[in-house]
Amino acid sequence: MPSLGSGKYDRGYIIPIGGCKHHITDDIAEQIRSICLNANASAVILTISSNTIEHDLRSNLIDNGFSTCSEVTITSRQDASQEELVQQLADNDLIIIVGQRPLQISTIIGGTPMAKQLRKLNADGVHIAGSYGAAALLSEHMIAGGEESITPKQDGVTMAPGLGLTNRFMLDYHFQQPGRLGRLLTALSYNPFTIGIGIDEGSALFISPEEELQVHGKGSATLIDPSNLQYSSMGSAGSGDYISLFGLQMHILAPGSRFKASDHQAYDEHWA
Amino acid sequence: MPSLGSGKYDRGYIIPIGGCKHHITDDIAEQIRSICLNANASAVILTISSNTIEHDLRSNLIDNGFSTCSEVTITSRQDASQEELVQQLADNDLIIIVGQRPLQISTIIGGTPMAKQLRKLNADGVHIAGSYGAAALLSEHMIAGGEESITPKQDGVTMAPGLGLTNRFMLDYHFQQPGRLGRLLTALSYNPFTIGIGIDEGSALFISPEEELQVHGKGSATLIDPSNLQYSSMGSAGSGDYISLFGLQMHILAPGSRFKASDHQAYDEHWA
Repeated sequence: MPSLGSGKYDRGYIIPIGGCKHHITDDIAEQIRSICLNANASAVILTISSNTIEHDLRSNLIDNGFSTCSEVTITSRQDASQEELVQQLADNDLIIIVGQRPLQISTIIGGTPMAKQLRKLNADGVHIAGSYGAAALLSEHMIAGGEESITPKQDGVTMAPGLGLTNRFMLDYHFQQPGRLGRLLTALSYNPFTIGIGIDEGSALFISPEEELQVHGKGSATLIDPSNLQYSSMGSAGSGDYISLFGLQMHILAPGSRFKASDHQAYDEHWA
Repeated sequence: MPSLGSGKYDRGYIIPIGGCKHHITDDIAEQIRSICLNANASAVILTISSNTIEHDLRSNLIDNGFSTCSEVTITSRQDASQEELVQQLADNDLIIIVGQRPLQISTIIGGTPMAKQLRKLNADGVHIAGSYGAAALLSEHMIAGGEESITPKQDGVTMAPGLGLTNRFMLDYHFQQPGRLGRLLTALSYNPFTIGIGIDEGSALFISPEEELQVHGKGSATLIDPSNLQYSSMGSAGSGDYISLFGLQMHILAPGSRFKASDHQAYDEHWA
């Protein structure tokens, strides 16, 4: 188990990956390898209710310096309660969760020993990545679906409890798809305490134990910070109504850019 | 010719309409009628290089209290220079420009007596609306096309000189289409002095002579104010690179909401 930064066991990185087909770029694989301080870093790919076995992902990790990369596949709540499968996740530096749709994954692992194991391992220092639908899963409050609208609407998003690794950021994946911005804005307007991030296909966020994130890969992240929201009409809106939101802060984070939750500020190698 | 507000001749309203098929809701038609202070208000529909004659639009205006609504159709630069057609635009309270693609329209009327006439009439107090592609045309700096990307990129937008009725706002239409946000952000990043607004299908902006706008119709407007932009990587980016933009202000304006360019502040009947 890696010890990070401060010397005591901090939680591991949380790594939502925005892409489809669970492909990761070499830049992302390299970065994942570099945060594993163990010389013989090992990874496990946890595939949840997905038909494809991700051999590309496995060879990509091995090519980038992981000494081993095992695979665990589950398709039911029974699988997610099997002691043997749950134990296979331990003793790794990295777990990559792979799955298509957030609700498909959360209905299988929610409340099972496997979900508890993932939370415990991350708290103990294991890095946990989620690709595609599993990227959204990593948040406490998960975006599960929504209307294809660029602007927010009452009832414009389906939310559900997620795996709960972070409460500071609400994550959405495949952000190039039509309507992703509207559903993220709707979700933020419900209770503007969390920071929303849409992740492009091909890019990944590395969220450190200090809640500082950096963008890697091919594509940007769109960060919406509602902490200084001046006005929202959500409270008085009827079902399906369009919602006014005044005073959102927006940062577009190209690869390499960073954002710190502690001071709500974006950074770049050329700035700040 | 209507005299507005202050008693002297202010410029007329500028009314970009975001919808496709040039349909306007009764709310928009009513609002258009209400800003024409002339008891016998007259309108003209100026169709530029579009195959459809907008009979619905005409009857919609008549139904909402316009005493007359004539039609002028042009398809070439020669048409746009014909004295008779140019003169038909005068002596109306409202001109609605109808056209499909911004560049199609600007290449026909750019630099012609008709373009000069439109600018002069608006300066003298005539309200000028632009529907669909003609909504984008109304700005000084016009968004003519771009990549379908939600995040901004170097070279991600095609810009061209527009009709030039306002320099404070850069307008984009049909904002539900994929990639509209990315091209608007790219355009703003080139020179962040103007305020960007994406208009949903079915909604319209009413931009007053004092540069205060209000949203009407069915749908919202997405306003991006870059005036406090903290950092842009545009200056150092290569062709096709993703762009970082930190510190954009974003306001989602549902129908009824307003924004004043003078103080960069959004307003709503329930707030401020």
